Amino acid sequence: MAIIMLIRQEHFSASHRLYHAGYNKAWNTKTYGRCSRPHGHGHNYILEVSVCGIPDTTTGMIMNLKQLKLILQKKILSKVDHTHLNYDVDFLKNIIPTTENVALAFWNELDQAIPKKKLYKLKLWETEKNSVEILRS
Amino acid sequence: MAIIMLIRQEHFSASHRLYHAGYNKAWNTKTYGRCSRPHGHGHNYILEVSVCGIPDTTTGMIMNLKQLKLILQKKILSKVDHTHLNYDVDFLKNIIPTTENVALAFWNELDQAIPKKKLYKLKLWETEKNSVEILRS
Amino acid sequence: MAIIMLIRQEHFSASHRLYHAGYNKAWNTKTYGRCSRPHGHGHNYILEVSVCGIPDTTTGMIMNLKQLKLILQKKILSKVDHTHLNYDVDFLKNIIPTTENVALAFWNELDQAIPKKKLYKLKLWETEKNSVEILRS
Amino acid sequence: MAIIMLIRQEHFSASHRLYHAGYNKAWNTKTYGRCSRPHGHGHNYILEVSVCGIPDTTTGMIMNLKQLKLILQKKILSKVDHTHLNYDVDFLKNIIPTTENVALAFWNELDQAIPKKKLYKLKLWETEKNSVEILRS
Amino acid sequence: MAIIMLIRQEHFSASHRLYHAGYNKAWNTKTYGRCSRPHGHGHNYILEVSVCGIPDTTTGMIMNLKQLKLILQKKILSKVDHTHLNYDVDFLKNIIPTTENVALAFWNELDQAIPKKKLYKLKLWETEKNSVEILRS
Amino acid sequence: MAIIMLIRQEHFSASHRLYHAGYNKAWNTKTYGRCSRPHGHGHNYILEVSVCGIPDTTTGMIMNLKQLKLILQKKILSKVDHTHLNYDVDFLKNIIPTTENVALAFWNELDQAIPKKKLYKLKLWETEKNSVEILRS
Repeated sequence: MAIIMLIRQEHFSASHRLYHAGYNKAWNTKTYGRCSRPHGHGHNYILEVSVCGIPDTTTGMIMNLKQLKLILQKKILSKVDHTHLNYDVDFLKNIIPTTENVALAFWNELDQAIPKKKLYKLKLWETEKNSVEILRS
Repeated sequence: MAIIMLIRQEHFSASHRLYHAGYNKAWNTKTYGRCSRPHGHGHNYILEVSVCGIPDTTTGMIMNLKQLKLILQKKILSKVDHTHLNYDVDFLKNIIPTTENVALAFWNELDQAIPKKKLYKLKLWETEKNSVEILRS
Repeated sequence: MAIIMLIRQEHFSASHRLYHAGYNKAWNTKTYGRCSRPHGHGHNYILEVSVCGIPDTTTGMIMNLKQLKLILQKKILSKVDHTHLNYDVDFLKNIIPTTENVALAFWNELDQAIPKKKLYKLKLWETEKNSVEILRS
Repeated sequence: MAIIMLIRQEHFSASHRLYHAGYNKAWNTKTYGRCSRPHGHGHNYILEVSVCGIPDTTTGMIMNLKQLKLILQKKILSKVDHTHLNYDVDFLKNIIPTTENVALAFWNELDQAIPKKKLYKLKLWETEKNSVEILRS
Repeated sequence: MAIIMLIRQEHFSASHRLYHAGYNKAWNTKTYGRCSRPHGHGHNYILEVSVCGIPDTTTGMIMNLKQLKLILQKKILSKVDHTHLNYDVDFLKNIIPTTENVALAFWNELDQAIPKKKLYKLKLWETEKNSVEILRS
Repeated sequence: MAIIMLIRQEHFSASHRLYHAGYNKAWNTKTYGRCSRPHGHGHNYILEVSVCGIPDTTTGMIMNLKQLKLILQKKILSKVDHTHLNYDVDFLKNIIPTTENVALAFWNELDQAIPKKKLYKLKLWETEKNSVEILRS
């Protein structure tokens, strides 16, 4: 009758560059604009993860927030914070780090780590105005 | 299995007045309170538009954000920013500009302009505390 | 074809303590960490309530915001603002006030008070980073 | 040795139009841009008022926040909220309502109403990005 | 010619009660309103500390942010986060925890701990709308 | 008797790396932590500039906001947005881009460009929690 979600927001700072090596500079500039400049640029990203489930009748929790924070720290934040997403992150290798692609890669990492398919929604802000949301359906 | 959305937020400033010309002043004051005062009042509106789809395997994008920003600029922002919504906007003629009605009018404009029925969600804030959300179902 | 929601956000300040009287101190510390400390602690909670429906063709409103604000004030805010959630609130008696449990109790209070099952979504933030969302399904 | 301030923030929504009747349309458009359009536009203004003094040794307060809120309500908010600043506010008559002029008019109203010259700083936001601050020196 | 400040913001959650034991309930209710209720209530406080100085010509820093964060953690956050300010904090004993008094107590703790009188400004928010600022003069 | 400021806030996204080439890796890691990692990282910076003066009696403005926005665009934003601050910005060459150093470099650029020494305050946020403020004294 109702979906109940526990939601946690985390912040990290990283660089990225949108550039497809299989195309020339003109194509990249036309497609990605200033985001394709050679030395890259960066953002204060915000990641918000929602897990759904029935609150445990003893603890009153869908999932212990401490456990969720540990998973986010281990699987995502320790790997991406203060890095260059094109060069420093194993699970982003060979991906053009658009917000869509980064969010999907985060979803895949977290969906394996969060027990019982509880991952329900993931939102990633690149800036206050630009974001991507993934919703299990 | 999953819905993926690209989200863009825009801001504009406008005036409006909630007043139904078919009813008298007492009815309007009872229904709309101070929002019915004769000279109108205004807000810094926030508009957030979500388009869904599968990220293109070459570009890594659901839709080029540049294209989405152009549509929002042409169809909505250039028409409503720094205006009085009751008098200055063609597609709001003969509508009482409640947040619900303005959001629905924006939805109709954008649903025609955004290709392939990608428009999925639209949220319009009148103030930080008052907003309307429309969700394709 | 589309779900339309009117959304209202309210703020309140309250204390709480996460502690299960049926378990010892070690269990409580392991489960709830610093949230189990004896004198409690507090938050500036944010409550966001979404009601859905078809805007009335005369008023242009899903529900009069004045009515929604009155219900929120009477059923929730007047009872929880500037209180200790463990001791002062009738409908939270015998509940461990995790964000999940408080949100569910608010949902039950509001679902009885808002006419025509219009209550569609409820979000409760304990801090900017920790929140719970309930969605009618 | 130290200045101590108690700070209160309030919100209001209003319309305005920047237009100097002593000049022609071209001058007004050149000077004020879209802010000079005939029907006006509006904002969610934020007003922040700082009063300074020594906290009372009994109450621990520079000034009772309840008293400060009453003064702000009576002298400013009840007069400007949900109005058109060019037409509806007695103390703004014959003033072009730029943020500078509105902030100065608020300062003058409040400096008379707040006891013992405690008014120290006033900040008025027209939008998140545009604001004016006045500081006693 | 110019004052240069490095600014750090931190968050903590705590309970408090405004109640003067030397006066009766009526006086306390008149003075502190709902803030005097017996079980207390709580807030998500924000603390912002500004230190001034000349950036070091080698490091480009007024003070190493790591050092400032350690001082804030040791002297303030570890003592006040997830506590009741009336009962749990040594340096707040016998103080009525108005925002003014708490900010002054924080100032005194930090002014002793931050080297070379670099502490220049301290701002403490109890809610988004209520805050206190202290400025060295 | 009073200082009046017009304030404008702008956003930009950039990469940077804190690394002193005259010292070895151990020194850099000790001083700058993860900020010294080889590929750099990035932020959504916020720049807020305050100009002071007497509002013109005709226009009601300290300075035309359009002119201030043009100066900020030409002197700062067009040069730093979507760049790597260590490599791409002429006026940041040979500077370690700590927030202090970047803010000082911005101050120098703007103090030459804004007429009549009106520049009064400049604040630069690297993240919501870390910032630097410069104040003319």
